[in-house]
Amino acid sequence: MKQINAAGRSIETMIDGRSFVAYAGGKKYGRNSKVVNTITDALRSCGLKHGMTISFHHQLRNGDYVINKTLESIKDLGVKDIRLAQTALFNVHEPLIDYIKDGIVTRIEGSVNGPVGDYISKNNPLKAPVILRSHGGRWSAVKRGELHPDIAVIAASSADIRGNATGMLGESAFGNIAYSQVDAFHADKVIIVTDTIVDYPCRYREIYEGLVDYVVEIDRIGDPEKIVSGSLKITDDPEKLDIGKQCVDLMDAAGIIKNGMIFQAGAGGISLAALKYLGERLEEKDLVAGCSTGGLTEFIVDMYNKGRLKQINTCQCFDTIAVDFVRNHLEATSTIGEYSDPTMKGRNTDLLDTVILGATEVDTHFNVNVNTHSDGRLLHGIGGHQDVSAASNLTIITVPVYRKKNPIVLEDVTTISTPGDVIDAIVTNEGIAINPKRKDIINKVKGTIDILDINDLKNIAYDATGGLKKPTLGKDIIGMTKYFDGTVLDTIYQVLD
Amino acid sequence: MKQINAAGRSIETMIDGRSFVAYAGGKKYGRNSKVVNTITDALRSCGLKHGMTISFHHQLRNGDYVINKTLESIKDLGVKDIRLAQTALFNVHEPLIDYIKDGIVTRIEGSVNGPVGDYISKNNPLKAPVILRSHGGRWSAVKRGELHPDIAVIAASSADIRGNATGMLGESAFGNIAYSQVDAFHADKVIIVTDTIVDYPCRYREIYEGLVDYVVEIDRIGDPEKIVSGSLKITDDPEKLDIGKQCVDLMDAAGIIKNGMIFQAGAGGISLAALKYLGERLEEKDLVAGCSTGGLTEFIVDMYNKGRLKQINTCQCFDTIAVDFVRNHLEATSTIGEYSDPTMKGRNTDLLDTVILGATEVDTHFNVNVNTHSDGRLLHGIGGHQDVSAASNLTIITVPVYRKKNPIVLEDVTTISTPGDVIDAIVTNEGIAINPKRKDIINKVKGTIDILDINDLKNIAYDATGGLKKPTLGKDIIGMTKYFDGTVLDTIYQVLD
Repeated sequence: MKQINAAGRSIETMIDGRSFVAYAGGKKYGRNSKVVNTITDALRSCGLKHGMTISFHHQLRNGDYVINKTLESIKDLGVKDIRLAQTALFNVHEPLIDYIKDGIVTRIEGSVNGPVGDYISKNNPLKAPVILRSHGGRWSAVKRGELHPDIAVIAASSADIRGNATGMLGESAFGNIAYSQVDAFHADKVIIVTDTIVDYPCRYREIYEGLVDYVVEIDRIGDPEKIVSGSLKITDDPEKLDIGKQCVDLMDAAGIIKNGMIFQAGAGGISLAALKYLGERLEEKDLVAGCSTGGLTEFIVDMYNKGRLKQINTCQCFDTIAVDFVRNHLEATSTIGEYSDPTMKGRNTDLLDTVILGATEVDTHFNVNVNTHSDGRLLHGIGGHQDVSAASNLTIITVPVYRKKNPIVLEDVTTISTPGDVIDAIVTNEGIAINPKRKDIINKVKGTIDILDINDLKNIAYDATGGLKKPTLGKDIIGMTKYFDGTVLDTIYQVLD
Repeated sequence: MKQINAAGRSIETMIDGRSFVAYAGGKKYGRNSKVVNTITDALRSCGLKHGMTISFHHQLRNGDYVINKTLESIKDLGVKDIRLAQTALFNVHEPLIDYIKDGIVTRIEGSVNGPVGDYISKNNPLKAPVILRSHGGRWSAVKRGELHPDIAVIAASSADIRGNATGMLGESAFGNIAYSQVDAFHADKVIIVTDTIVDYPCRYREIYEGLVDYVVEIDRIGDPEKIVSGSLKITDDPEKLDIGKQCVDLMDAAGIIKNGMIFQAGAGGISLAALKYLGERLEEKDLVAGCSTGGLTEFIVDMYNKGRLKQINTCQCFDTIAVDFVRNHLEATSTIGEYSDPTMKGRNTDLLDTVILGATEVDTHFNVNVNTHSDGRLLHGIGGHQDVSAASNLTIITVPVYRKKNPIVLEDVTTISTPGDVIDAIVTNEGIAINPKRKDIINKVKGTIDILDINDLKNIAYDATGGLKKPTLGKDIIGMTKYFDGTVLDTIYQVLD
């Protein structure tokens, strides 16, 4: 069938059973600024309503002002019953407790850390259990629609008037934005909150204008002193240093320390110690590692600068040296999706040779708890723990066998954060246990490394502490840990007394 | 309801009407290499079948070996009735004609340039009309599922064994891959074809491993001499130089030449001349432009190095200097999606102050033809023409009023590639016409610039050439131009004789 379109041309609207629509006229794209005056204005323009889900990233860490300010705006607008979908919380977010008490926040899907986790553990104040996911698990939950943000509020240290936004420029720089791309893609509305509007186009664009509805400039998005550390310190505790050294000995015995090795180690004391020893070992053997993944610190930048590490690939900067590094090495940045989306055909972590991770508890089934303390309180998130544990060939958990009067190696962890199915070795101040499933590793290190039975470590812990003290838990479920595939790993109960 | 999961924990499968699935066990991610020996092996592993759609990018330009080699493999596999979804073709793809004759390729959605377009124009050999889209229109068609590649074959100048791939490293480097992300996301299967396997992880990852099924290493993906120009030359034709100068005079009169101005100009002779004059004008007035978008050449890099241009944002490198530039300025790269996806909340081109574009014909309605020649043959693609025309505040088309015996400014273009609705000025060797809709521009430049009526330009063209010679066209439709919103702009008919 022929039709005359808006350009005056005769076109066929059906060819071989396929239908076509006639051109109806064209006009120029809009060139408007997306800047609005306040977070309140932006939320109002986004059509904020009772019951909505609002997401945030945690990359401003303990310096973040954006979550608290947004909650204040939600309160000002008289809106209640919000589901919070932050990637994590810090001590600075303690005011959230009042918004929970006021019924403004009634559900949370995201890590609840520190005081907020403590409050929820003791008071069970929410309508539904907190859902805890790994970084990769959260990314895929948003992608699959299991966790749909109505509005994504994305903190940026610089942005332009059209919404191109970065975490790498400006006084509140925190490193490449890596958690929010999936929110920006899937949320119905996207608000960039920044304290620095730069000339268009913003030089770096971790979030690009095509995804953004509104840009808000506020006085400060956070306290730079608390966003990134000026510098982190390696532990000087001899026991922790020794655990770090054992990790490197284990890697070495397992044949992992070689040219091109790919590793990850976090920013905790033991991990930094392990990094130091790994750097020394590479130096001694005149080897060059291929890549490091995960959070970036000056210790890894230092290995790179010394020529002991060919490449860095990071989602998060922990100190100012790391921020400087990514600003000048954009190729060293990844999103969480690239890093750990479980639904893809691969991740930038799949070839990890080894990763060193901490824990609050581990058990004789090699299950790891990173969420709750021995007293049952929910105080930490899962982070990338599950993601890299499943990716790394040698996943090492470092813990002391006990802390104060609490066994840390025990029969059953209080909460399973990462299942023993993907954990390979437990390195402690009392020695090393290897998951019996990993016969290949056991065979390789036998003779070089003393391997203990995990039950022996548990027994040492129980003997030294007088045995397990079970936390006093109620029957109400206050949270749950999900595996990155969306299934439920464990249930977290209210803490009584 | 309670259930014991694979970690031995009792979990609730229903809470507040929301259902949860129990953890069923975890295992390590695969660490396998994705490398297969040949394109044939990769296609076979992808389950290539009759009737499938196979996509390619054109960034190896006239040096490309990948499309021809893939067609050879398809033939070897005995598969027919393929729909080709390349972004563009070049003279090097002339062998495609034989695959069309053999019934191996029966439909094409993508630019058909040069000899293939000529063949199709004259012979109407396909089952359905060729569908031509702009860069942004194609991106959104793939995203919306209107054009679904079953298999995306993506040429990369370097890649690692897991599929992280770039166009910026290796002997066949062609610049950042910018067209293929949408194919990689939406195709059922993705094959990277490279001639250089690098250590994992590939330093640049325009396509990342999560999107890739197979990696094929072949001897050479293309002829470096023809992939990018060693260097492009500014025209020395005084008429073309004059058109370039008029463009800059027009911009100046329109108040566009100012600090922070955002512009785009292509790699054609007139565009390069205009760039030269623009650089000189900025110098004279001591101004600094904000950003250039679009294809990158040494002329733009030169403006940047001279401090007359703050930023570059490019999707495609035209010469080796441009490739070197993006390799060291990753922030200067965008995907076509960021550049021109019409379905988003903005594009990196929306704030363009001005763009200079060429044409095969323009008409008195300001419609532009970039696809067909005066004789009706389909020889070019739409490229980004529509996309930036709709984005730029002052869209300038540069043409001579006639070429040889053919009027170039005429009453009705042979094919509408970009509608007059979004075209602002026609700059010719005989003077400038401005779209009467743009009263704002006319008012600004009046008194400084002589404005001609577009009909006067047409009359000059008709007088000089003896008037319009209508091409001899048949009734069979061999192609159609779509606007970036998916509607049909125009129909292209078979050329007789």
